[in-house]
Amino acid sequence: MTSAAHDDHTTTSAAFPTTIDLNADAGESFGNWALGHDAQLFPLLTSVNLALGFHAGDPVTLHGAVKLARQHGLGIGAHPGYPDLVGFGRRAMALTPQEIYAAAAYQIGALQAFLTIEQATLQHVKAHGALYMRIHEDAAAGEAFCEAVRHLTPQAHLIVLAGAAGEELAATARARGLSVKREAFPERAYTADGRLASRLLPGSSIHDPAEAARRAVGMAQGWVQPLDGERLKLQVDTLCIHGDNPHAVEIAGAITSALSEQGLRLAPLHG
Amino acid sequence: MTSAAHDDHTTTSAAFPTTIDLNADAGESFGNWALGHDAQLFPLLTSVNLALGFHAGDPVTLHGAVKLARQHGLGIGAHPGYPDLVGFGRRAMALTPQEIYAAAAYQIGALQAFLTIEQATLQHVKAHGALYMRIHEDAAAGEAFCEAVRHLTPQAHLIVLAGAAGEELAATARARGLSVKREAFPERAYTADGRLASRLLPGSSIHDPAEAARRAVGMAQGWVQPLDGERLKLQVDTLCIHGDNPHAVEIAGAITSALSEQGLRLAPLHG
Amino acid sequence: MTSAAHDDHTTTSAAFPTTIDLNADAGESFGNWALGHDAQLFPLLTSVNLALGFHAGDPVTLHGAVKLARQHGLGIGAHPGYPDLVGFGRRAMALTPQEIYAAAAYQIGALQAFLTIEQATLQHVKAHGALYMRIHEDAAAGEAFCEAVRHLTPQAHLIVLAGAAGEELAATARARGLSVKREAFPERAYTADGRLASRLLPGSSIHDPAEAARRAVGMAQGWVQPLDGERLKLQVDTLCIHGDNPHAVEIAGAITSALSEQGLRLAPLHG
Amino acid sequence: MTSAAHDDHTTTSAAFPTTIDLNADAGESFGNWALGHDAQLFPLLTSVNLALGFHAGDPVTLHGAVKLARQHGLGIGAHPGYPDLVGFGRRAMALTPQEIYAAAAYQIGALQAFLTIEQATLQHVKAHGALYMRIHEDAAAGEAFCEAVRHLTPQAHLIVLAGAAGEELAATARARGLSVKREAFPERAYTADGRLASRLLPGSSIHDPAEAARRAVGMAQGWVQPLDGERLKLQVDTLCIHGDNPHAVEIAGAITSALSEQGLRLAPLHG
Repeated sequence: MTSAAHDDHTTTSAAFPTTIDLNADAGESFGNWALGHDAQLFPLLTSVNLALGFHAGDPVTLHGAVKLARQHGLGIGAHPGYPDLVGFGRRAMALTPQEIYAAAAYQIGALQAFLTIEQATLQHVKAHGALYMRIHEDAAAGEAFCEAVRHLTPQAHLIVLAGAAGEELAATARARGLSVKREAFPERAYTADGRLASRLLPGSSIHDPAEAARRAVGMAQGWVQPLDGERLKLQVDTLCIHGDNPHAVEIAGAITSALSEQGLRLAPLHG
Repeated sequence: MTSAAHDDHTTTSAAFPTTIDLNADAGESFGNWALGHDAQLFPLLTSVNLALGFHAGDPVTLHGAVKLARQHGLGIGAHPGYPDLVGFGRRAMALTPQEIYAAAAYQIGALQAFLTIEQATLQHVKAHGALYMRIHEDAAAGEAFCEAVRHLTPQAHLIVLAGAAGEELAATARARGLSVKREAFPERAYTADGRLASRLLPGSSIHDPAEAARRAVGMAQGWVQPLDGERLKLQVDTLCIHGDNPHAVEIAGAITSALSEQGLRLAPLHG
Repeated sequence: MTSAAHDDHTTTSAAFPTTIDLNADAGESFGNWALGHDAQLFPLLTSVNLALGFHAGDPVTLHGAVKLARQHGLGIGAHPGYPDLVGFGRRAMALTPQEIYAAAAYQIGALQAFLTIEQATLQHVKAHGALYMRIHEDAAAGEAFCEAVRHLTPQAHLIVLAGAAGEELAATARARGLSVKREAFPERAYTADGRLASRLLPGSSIHDPAEAARRAVGMAQGWVQPLDGERLKLQVDTLCIHGDNPHAVEIAGAITSALSEQGLRLAPLHG
Repeated sequence: MTSAAHDDHTTTSAAFPTTIDLNADAGESFGNWALGHDAQLFPLLTSVNLALGFHAGDPVTLHGAVKLARQHGLGIGAHPGYPDLVGFGRRAMALTPQEIYAAAAYQIGALQAFLTIEQATLQHVKAHGALYMRIHEDAAAGEAFCEAVRHLTPQAHLIVLAGAAGEELAATARARGLSVKREAFPERAYTADGRLASRLLPGSSIHDPAEAARRAVGMAQGWVQPLDGERLKLQVDTLCIHGDNPHAVEIAGAITSALSEQGLRLAPLHG
C-alpha cells in the first residue's frame, strides 16, 4: 500500500493544486435543539464532519445529515468527540488511550450504519473539539485514534492540522498507512510558527467574510499571513469553516467566489 | 430471496431439531459498574446479545464483550435498547417509529465497528427490554425496527418471542425477507395461550436450575407446560437465560447437561 | 392549615379577578444549544417555569435563568421533567411513582440551591411535558408528584390544567394541603368538554398573536370558546405561552396589551 | 464569625483528640447497577459522602442512601463530582470555574431536597474523584467550589486532604469563613512530604485490614509513616475508606476495633 505517500501529492508539487476541499462541522443539532445551518450551508461545502452523538447529534439528526450530505454530493466524514454533551466536546477530558480508541470506533461505526443505509461511503475521519486537540498533542492518544481508524476504516482520510502542529499526528497516521489531509481555518489567525493563534489574542478570529475569503485563497495557494512576521508556507488540503457561526453561509459563499476568481475550484477530498 | 421460508426449517419438521441455541444478554456493565458474569457464562452459551450503550454497555465494555464472545465462538447479536441508562431500557418510552429506526441503526452500527475490528460477523438482532416488548405489540414500531435491520443487516436473524406473542412481529420481519428465530425463556412461566406469564403471578419465575433445565429440554423439543392447562406446542429456535441472574452460570450448566442427556446439543443460530 | 381552600378564592368569586399570571417555560438552553428568548421574554412575563437539567437546562443555564427571573421580579417555578434530554421530556416514559417522586424532589432541590444563592423563593411547581400529562392522567403518578411537593416545598403552588382535565390532580393536591393554580393556554384550542384539543386537529394551534390575546382575555375573565359548541366556563389562574415559539415575544406583548385594555393586569401567583 | 479558627481546635491541641470520624463514599449505585456495600458498611461508619447523580447515584438511590444514613445516625455529606457517569467522575475534565460552581451548587441542592424530606441536616461537602484533586491543585477551581459552599451551605464542613496537599484549599475555604476538616486514607501510602503516594508505586495501596487499622490509629493520633523517611506529623479529622472495596466492611471493622483498643472513639464531624 502506498497511501502513506500519495496523500501529499497534490500539495507538494511545485504548483499549488487547482482544487481544495471546504469542510464544516454539521449534524450538530440535538433532539429539540437546533444548531447550525445545514440546509443553507451544504450547497456551498464539499465535505462535512458529522457529529456522532457523543458531543452533539442524535440518531435521527445523524441520519438526516447523512441524507442531506448525500443529496449535495458531499464527502462525508466521521467527527467523533468526547462523551460530553453539555460541554459540546470542547472540554478536555482525561480518557485513556483505550477509551479514545473504543469511543472513536463506536462513533465511526454508528455513522457507517447510516452510510450503508444511504449507500454512501466514508470519506474521512476528523476528531472534534478537545479530542482533536488532544490527539495532536498527546502521542498515545493520537496513536489510539489512528489505530481505531486503521482497524475500522483504513481507506478513510485522517484530517490533521496543517502546519507544525499537525506534523506528529500526521506521521503517526502515515506510519499506519493512513492517508492524511491537512486542514486550515480561514477564520482563524496563525502565529509565525504556523500554529493557530490563541483565541485570547486580539485579531485571532476573522469575522469579515471578505477577509476570510482572501485568507482561504492564500491557504489554497499554500501560504498564510501570520499575526506577526512574514508570509508563511502552509500546505493545505481542506479549509474548515465554522458551521455554527451565524455568518457561515455568507463566509462559505465569499470563499467560493474568491477561489473561483483565482481559478481555483472546490472539490471533495481525493485519494 | 428465500429467507422468509428457510428460517423455520429445522423446527417445523416433524421431528424436533437436534440442536438449539442458548443466548443471554451480555456486555451489560457500564463504566465502573460491573453487571453479569460474562467470563463465567460465555463458555456455556452459544449466542450473546450485546448491550450497545443506550440502556447499558459502553464502548470499552462492548469491545471487550465482542472479543470474549469471539474467543468462545459465540454467535454475536446486537441488542439495541431505549436511550435510558438509569432505567436499563426497561421502562416503556414513547419513541416514534422514526426514532426507533434511527436508534436501532445507530446501535447496530456501533456494534459492527467492533465486529469489523475483531473480524467477526453479526449473527442476529434482538431488541432489549421495553423496546423488545414494544416492537411485538406496536405494529408501526415493529415495522420501523425491521426496516432498520433490513436496510442495514439483512442477513442477520431477527429474534422474536416464540408463540402467539411473536407472530405479528415474525410476519412483519418475514414480509421484509428477514430470517426469524423464536426464543423462549426456561426461567419464565407461560400461560395457556402461549404467552409469558406476568411476573406478578405466583410461580411466574423459575428459580430452580433443575426445573429450568427440564423446561429447556421441553422447549427444545417443541413444547412448554403452561401455568394452567395442558402441554402446549411452542416452536423454539433459541433459549434465553438471564445473564444478570446470580445463578446464571449454574442454570446454564444445568440446561447444557439436561439437553445432552436427551441427545440434544447446543449450537449457535444457523441459516 | 387552610391552603386547601384559599387557592380558589380569587377565581371562584362571582366577579372574575382583576389580575392574572402569565407564565412560560424558560431556562431551556442546554450547554452550547440555545433555546427560547429568555432575555426578551422575561420583561413581559410574571412567572417562569425553569427547566432543571433532566429534559433541558444545565447548572450554568439554570443559575443564569434564576438570576434573570429575579431581576425581573418574576415568580419562579420548578419545572421537573422526565430524564430524557434528547426527547426534551416530551416522550411518555414509564417511571414508577417512586421514581417520579424522587426525580421531582431531586430537581426541585437543585433549583432551590440557586434560589438560596440568589435569595429568591420558590413560587410554584409545574411538571413538564409528558410528565405533566402523566400526573393528570395517572392517579398514582399524580399522588407521587404531589407528595414530593408536600414533603419538600409545601408552600409552593402546584400548577394544574384548568378545566375538567385538571380536576383529579387538583383534588389530589388539595387533599394534601397544597395550593392549586389552574393554567390555560391562549395558543391552544379547547374542546367542548374543556380539554385541550389534540394538536392533530385543524385549528388546534393559534398562531395569530391578536387571536391568542383575545383568548387570553377570555380566559382571564373565566371562559373559553371551544372548537365546537358554546362558550365554556374555565377558571384560570395563570396563562401559559410557549417560550420556544419564535413569536413568543410578540404574543406576550399582544396579551399584555389586550388584558390592559380590559382593565386586567398581569401579576405573579399569590396566596 | 470565627469558624476560620475553630475547626482546627481539636487537632492542634497538644494531645491528639479522643474521637475521629470515619467516612466512605456511598450511594454509588446507578439504576440497575449496584455498587458498594451501604447496608453492611453504614453501621460501621460515622459519616458518608453521597453521590449526587453526576458521576454516580440517581434520585431513588440517593433518597435511599439518605434514609439509611439517617437510620444509622451518620453525618451526611454532599459528594459532588464531574458530569461523567461512564468515567465515574474519575477522569479530569476541564470544567470552567463557573461550571464547577454551578455543578456543585446543583448537586448539593439535590441532596438537600432529600435531607429536608428526611429531616436531616448537611454535615459536610467533599468533592469526588477528579474534581476533588482539581480543587486542591487549581486555585480558581478551589475558589469556585468554596464559593458554592459558602453561598449555599456555609455551615457545612469542607473536607480537604490532610497534609501539605490540602493547605492551599484549606486556606481558601477558611478565608471564606468555612469550617475545614482534613481527611487521610488508611488504605493509601504517603510520601515523605505528606502527600498521597502515586497508585503506581509499589506498596501504595494497603490491602491488609490489620495494617490499615494500624495506620488509622496513627492518623487519629496525628501521624503517618510514609513510604520512605521518618514518621510524619499529619493532622487528621476524618479517615476515609473506600466503600467500593470488596473488603470495605472488614477494614471498617478492623479500624473500629483498633481505635477502641487505643481509647479512641469514632464520632461524626463536629463544630
